[in-house]
Amino acid sequence: MTGQGRASAISPRIPGARSETIRRSNLASILTSLHIAGPASRSELVERTGLTRSAVGGLIGELTARGLVSEARARPAGTPGRPSPVASARGDENVVVGLEILVDTIAVAVVGLGGEIARIERAHRPRDVAPAERLVEELAAMVRPILDGLRDARRVHGVGAAVAGVVHRHDRRVIFGPNLGWHDVPLGDLLRDALDVSVPVVIGNDGDLGALAERRRGAGRGVHDLVYLSGEVGIGGGIISGDHSITGGSGFAGEVGHMHVNPDGLRCGCGAIGCWETEAGEDALLRRAGLDPADGAVAVERLVADVERGRATARAAFDEEGRWLGVGIASLVNLFSPERVVLGGFLHRIYRHVIEPLRIVLDEQALAASRAQVEVVSAELGADAPVLGAAEAAWDSLLTDPGGVAPLGT
Amino acid sequence: MTGQGRASAISPRIPGARSETIRRSNLASILTSLHIAGPASRSELVERTGLTRSAVGGLIGELTARGLVSEARARPAGTPGRPSPVASARGDENVVVGLEILVDTIAVAVVGLGGEIARIERAHRPRDVAPAERLVEELAAMVRPILDGLRDARRVHGVGAAVAGVVHRHDRRVIFGPNLGWHDVPLGDLLRDALDVSVPVVIGNDGDLGALAERRRGAGRGVHDLVYLSGEVGIGGGIISGDHSITGGSGFAGEVGHMHVNPDGLRCGCGAIGCWETEAGEDALLRRAGLDPADGAVAVERLVADVERGRATARAAFDEEGRWLGVGIASLVNLFSPERVVLGGFLHRIYRHVIEPLRIVLDEQALAASRAQVEVVSAELGADAPVLGAAEAAWDSLLTDPGGVAPLGT
Repeated sequence: MTGQGRASAISPRIPGARSETIRRSNLASILTSLHIAGPASRSELVERTGLTRSAVGGLIGELTARGLVSEARARPAGTPGRPSPVASARGDENVVVGLEILVDTIAVAVVGLGGEIARIERAHRPRDVAPAERLVEELAAMVRPILDGLRDARRVHGVGAAVAGVVHRHDRRVIFGPNLGWHDVPLGDLLRDALDVSVPVVIGNDGDLGALAERRRGAGRGVHDLVYLSGEVGIGGGIISGDHSITGGSGFAGEVGHMHVNPDGLRCGCGAIGCWETEAGEDALLRRAGLDPADGAVAVERLVADVERGRATARAAFDEEGRWLGVGIASLVNLFSPERVVLGGFLHRIYRHVIEPLRIVLDEQALAASRAQVEVVSAELGADAPVLGAAEAAWDSLLTDPGGVAPLGT
Repeated sequence: MTGQGRASAISPRIPGARSETIRRSNLASILTSLHIAGPASRSELVERTGLTRSAVGGLIGELTARGLVSEARARPAGTPGRPSPVASARGDENVVVGLEILVDTIAVAVVGLGGEIARIERAHRPRDVAPAERLVEELAAMVRPILDGLRDARRVHGVGAAVAGVVHRHDRRVIFGPNLGWHDVPLGDLLRDALDVSVPVVIGNDGDLGALAERRRGAGRGVHDLVYLSGEVGIGGGIISGDHSITGGSGFAGEVGHMHVNPDGLRCGCGAIGCWETEAGEDALLRRAGLDPADGAVAVERLVADVERGRATARAAFDEEGRWLGVGIASLVNLFSPERVVLGGFLHRIYRHVIEPLRIVLDEQALAASRAQVEVVSAELGADAPVLGAAEAAWDSLLTDPGGVAPLGT
């Protein structure tokens, strides 16, 4: 074999760095740092970014002129001398809108640059098949008055939406949303039209976006390798490996609920046999406890109340749930060797009742090297993770190119 | 879907670009492009890297002065005028050594910059537990005369080793190699001492390195999302998602053979119940065919001969093997949504006898959106993938910082 003969036919691009793109990427580094890691002095920004002090000063000047950053002098407690200026992302002036379309709920959040939540509203919806247009209209009716209130006072930089389904990230379409009854819905375009906005509208799978939110603002902060699990009817998830989100080329990856764990199991909503969510999803838990899966979150709360009162059937159902969670999480630990597995969605609500049997199975079924490095924890953002992740995703275009924002007063 | 941030409460570093590091990274871009994608004119390098023509010229000059690149005028067939110079990586002067320690074989390869294979030697070994020191000494006895022959004529830039085990990539230790009987072996240090080399010695899991080789030089060229499967006794693998290798923080990830597919299955060598490799590994195939798993590759060849002669027991064994491969690959397709699944190792040898039942199960068990985008193919590098991947990994430090190489004549 000659190496040269085996070169890729499609002229691979291995990008170099051109000087004119560097200032833009450095603006992005400073603003991203202030957004994700919080306010910082210039010295701290030098430390965080590796840029020179004078470069940092110039970049802060540009971001300030664009109304994205403000600097104020603050004296750290107990230190003498002239206080050094601290730069902050201007969440008062710059916001995004996060949306959520799940099986049981729709929600909207307004989040400022820097991550402060201005408001969250959530509405429960019946667990039924709903035409996309109707659901988008219900959501739009929640969002419009909020957007109208924002338009004068603040700049809205983007809209993000988390949806319970397989999302094509480039086309902004929901390819398949079994529990919503959706097939190939152009959700991005429907939302843009219904909300009448000109800012970017991004959509993502609720598991992927929940993972993003927990990693930036919740139980996954500082973690480079993270598995986030959530779900209502089924089990969704989002995986971050070496700081990269596992999406696949079109955004279809991360369907953890459809790992095959039982060749003699049940038929899943996806058509396959023995998917993990048929054994460890909410339906399976409720079925084993003798409750009606159609009652969803209400039935889960009843089951939690039962186990806390010491009822044996409830305890047995949670034990079995914990074991099946352990089987699937052991596979994920062997595949990804994450530092942390975060249980969100309905798994967050039942965490304390399943964690013991789960850990026993994990000890038995996961490879020792990876088992020793992982902890299984409860989500910090709870039910808000998907809508907050949608808001985080809505920042992407601003954070990638803050120089594209017009300076104030122009 | 995630932005570029490494969010962390503990002083996150979001690197900016300093001008003094840019030249270094641009040298790396040019050399990496010539190494992976093959010879190119300056115009092609402008296209590949996005750098200006004058920048490309200067960088080629620096790489030429360091003996890493040469330029020669070549006239494309049938074009008039002055031929434009074509730059090539100098594989004649610059090599690495790849090594392989598997259950059935040890091997050594010498590979030039640009990917041309100068030589490969392989020795079969008995499938027994072998102390690491003994195996390293056997390998060193193969490598030393080769290294001695190279020392005068060529520069050796690194040594890489692929090993059948869980590897700690920073410590260069094999944490667990069940089929070699290894626990916590400092393989990197043992090899460096036995070979008496001062160049970097990197070690990696055979599945991860096989994936790297197939992606750069084999069936995965041009593919951004790739699952590579291999294996002898068990099933190993390497996963590339969005151009990033899935390793986990310590290198333990990608243990695809230890996904749990059968709660009523067999106990695996890892101690767990129902791992995929207990159903789809070489042992399982041979056992189902009534052959002795201890006969390994020899028995597999016999079974292949049997099925080609139309023997029904062999056909039934391959059908069952194909079905179990399909179950596990369906999970991997749902998790990673790869463009390509590459069957290497013993799966490469049996590919044509399992691919039909495998595809039937994949159609049934994988989510339609991801299924439609994936193809399952046979490896191109066959048994050489791990040792060639080890060689590719050995280039890492040169490709990351070619400016660290002294100019010729200094």
